[in-house]
Amino acid sequence: MESDNFLSAITRPTLLIDRAKAVANIERMAGKARSGGVVLRPHFKTHQTIEVGRWFRDAGIDRIAVSSVSMANFFAADGWTDIMVAFPVNLREIEEINHLARYTNLSLTVSSCGVMPMLSSKIQVPVSVFLEIDVGAGRTGFAPNDFKKMNLAIEQAAGNPNIRLAGLMTHAGHTYQAQNLVEIQRIHKTGMELLSNLKSHFTGSLPNLALSWGDTPTCAIATDYYSADEIRPGNFVYYDLMQWQLGVCSLHDIAVAVAAPVVALHPERNEIVVYTGAVHLSKEVAHCPAGKPHYGMVVMPEPTGRWKIPEEPVYLRRISQEHGVIATDEALSWRLAPGDLVGILPVHSCLTADLLRHDSTLIIG
Amino acid sequence: MESDNFLSAITRPTLLIDRAKAVANIERMAGKARSGGVVLRPHFKTHQTIEVGRWFRDAGIDRIAVSSVSMANFFAADGWTDIMVAFPVNLREIEEINHLARYTNLSLTVSSCGVMPMLSSKIQVPVSVFLEIDVGAGRTGFAPNDFKKMNLAIEQAAGNPNIRLAGLMTHAGHTYQAQNLVEIQRIHKTGMELLSNLKSHFTGSLPNLALSWGDTPTCAIATDYYSADEIRPGNFVYYDLMQWQLGVCSLHDIAVAVAAPVVALHPERNEIVVYTGAVHLSKEVAHCPAGKPHYGMVVMPEPTGRWKIPEEPVYLRRISQEHGVIATDEALSWRLAPGDLVGILPVHSCLTADLLRHDSTLIIG
Repeated sequence: MESDNFLSAITRPTLLIDRAKAVANIERMAGKARSGGVVLRPHFKTHQTIEVGRWFRDAGIDRIAVSSVSMANFFAADGWTDIMVAFPVNLREIEEINHLARYTNLSLTVSSCGVMPMLSSKIQVPVSVFLEIDVGAGRTGFAPNDFKKMNLAIEQAAGNPNIRLAGLMTHAGHTYQAQNLVEIQRIHKTGMELLSNLKSHFTGSLPNLALSWGDTPTCAIATDYYSADEIRPGNFVYYDLMQWQLGVCSLHDIAVAVAAPVVALHPERNEIVVYTGAVHLSKEVAHCPAGKPHYGMVVMPEPTGRWKIPEEPVYLRRISQEHGVIATDEALSWRLAPGDLVGILPVHSCLTADLLRHDSTLIIG
Repeated sequence: MESDNFLSAITRPTLLIDRAKAVANIERMAGKARSGGVVLRPHFKTHQTIEVGRWFRDAGIDRIAVSSVSMANFFAADGWTDIMVAFPVNLREIEEINHLARYTNLSLTVSSCGVMPMLSSKIQVPVSVFLEIDVGAGRTGFAPNDFKKMNLAIEQAAGNPNIRLAGLMTHAGHTYQAQNLVEIQRIHKTGMELLSNLKSHFTGSLPNLALSWGDTPTCAIATDYYSADEIRPGNFVYYDLMQWQLGVCSLHDIAVAVAAPVVALHPERNEIVVYTGAVHLSKEVAHCPAGKPHYGMVVMPEPTGRWKIPEEPVYLRRISQEHGVIATDEALSWRLAPGDLVGILPVHSCLTADLLRHDSTLIIG
């Protein structure tokens, strides 16, 4: 077991956040937004961390997206004043929403029929409202050709001084099923054309609709943001193996790893058991090039708290609640002893960061 | 939206714990242990909740298992004094272990070669140690025929007054892959035979080894605990869809459901979007009888906070971080409006309870 260095303080599964990598990821995206002529409204659901939020502020960001009213309250308490809840408005939280809208510029999302009349009858403070458009992800949002429902929602908001119909928003989540970068670019172009056409369609009655576009894969590789006014990527601050497998980032861009104590060694079957499982990483699964499922990639933490990526990939092959089983090779196996630490690059950093944010996070650098 | 009843206070995804069902599950298992002549040492990783722990205490339980030193500390603070950390000992927490062992009867688990000499050199307070035996799950533990490694571990502990080699323990996690109850019973019988043979083998040098057996599926359906001294099931306090699909419990035994606000309705494709996703349920997946994957089963909450199970099953078919998409039928669809609540029976209650325990749990009854 190492002594007298940064790692020696780590006793349990801990999210290591490499500040230099995260800040570089933020600055790269902010630069892309600037040269693309769009506002970067980063989605803060990935990190849910006050300090990481401040790195964005240092990069000139002043508007954010979140995916719940609780998260909006959390960041409002740190001084964020322009917040979009990029999630279908939850009418059960209308009291919290009315309260929060009193001291922030709050944007809400209406994603289906039936919501606007209830929102309109309950909202007591001015808010901006975006209509969510489904550009192909099939999760939620108005179908872009369903003018009947969109017109109805617009009518239901008309005349309410507390509702400003501010724009159209979408999350192109189907990029996560894309097979290559060309397909991601095609989803981006097609989706933005749908939004632009809708904006033109409504321009008579609603001349100033803003277009807000989400998802990290398109925003990270785009060279053109088309007619978008703002982009809402979130995952890019940390990236993860899912983004890497899509071709959107390099392994070296991934800014988080879970430090995992070695608790058992099984050289007879080339396996190492670590203290890190589904309650730390989540059960998000990815697949090795050979097609086998895995829950993370092993990296080697260094005394600084940063980590080295082995030349030959080694995967976390099985997890249960707290156990993780690494299928290793002899080279790694002979270097490790019980009580040593390995690092695990997560499959889905948003879920891993959510699980570890309460008490087991260390910022490096 | 309902008013003036138990549900009206629920604004966000919330774990509903039906006390009557959980207590009945506890009493049934305690009764089985009594008539089977074994001690019930319930695994508290499933609930991780002080109040639920007290229901066990009310049922006469005074020994518990946990899966981390943190969890041991958590329950020790509520007065539990006989605690087994049923997880390969994490040597990085040796300070916490030495501290905890001063005021509890602490049992630790050694699951592979290489661990005992390090434990032996660092432990400063008397503890009990169990050797973990792999009876077929293939996660961790000594192979039951690897006498060389087991003997070495026993020798490495010999003479250390702080280490009492107390027994052999196992977790038959391979029951979760069983196709039917007969297979679960076969795993139980075979595994217990392996443990009994080992106990006989070591009886000359270690005459009083206790046998500790884990996992809910075998313990819930067993009519015979063979030569076990104690059983360590955990999940049974809540059960879940995984246990139900194994045939181990009924849907009505499941004691937890996640209350999920309806946030969008898509009758055009028979889908309902709820505010409940991977950060509330986890991404544990199960499969409908037709083979399609799902993340939970829909139930209808009632004003009391309890829930009704629809005659025709309805599933949560897709989830992302906070979104859940229910594939519904017209009958359910026309009854629901934005802001209503549905309940979701979880696929894996341990992970769901872990996610919601921090701030979103309600005990019913």
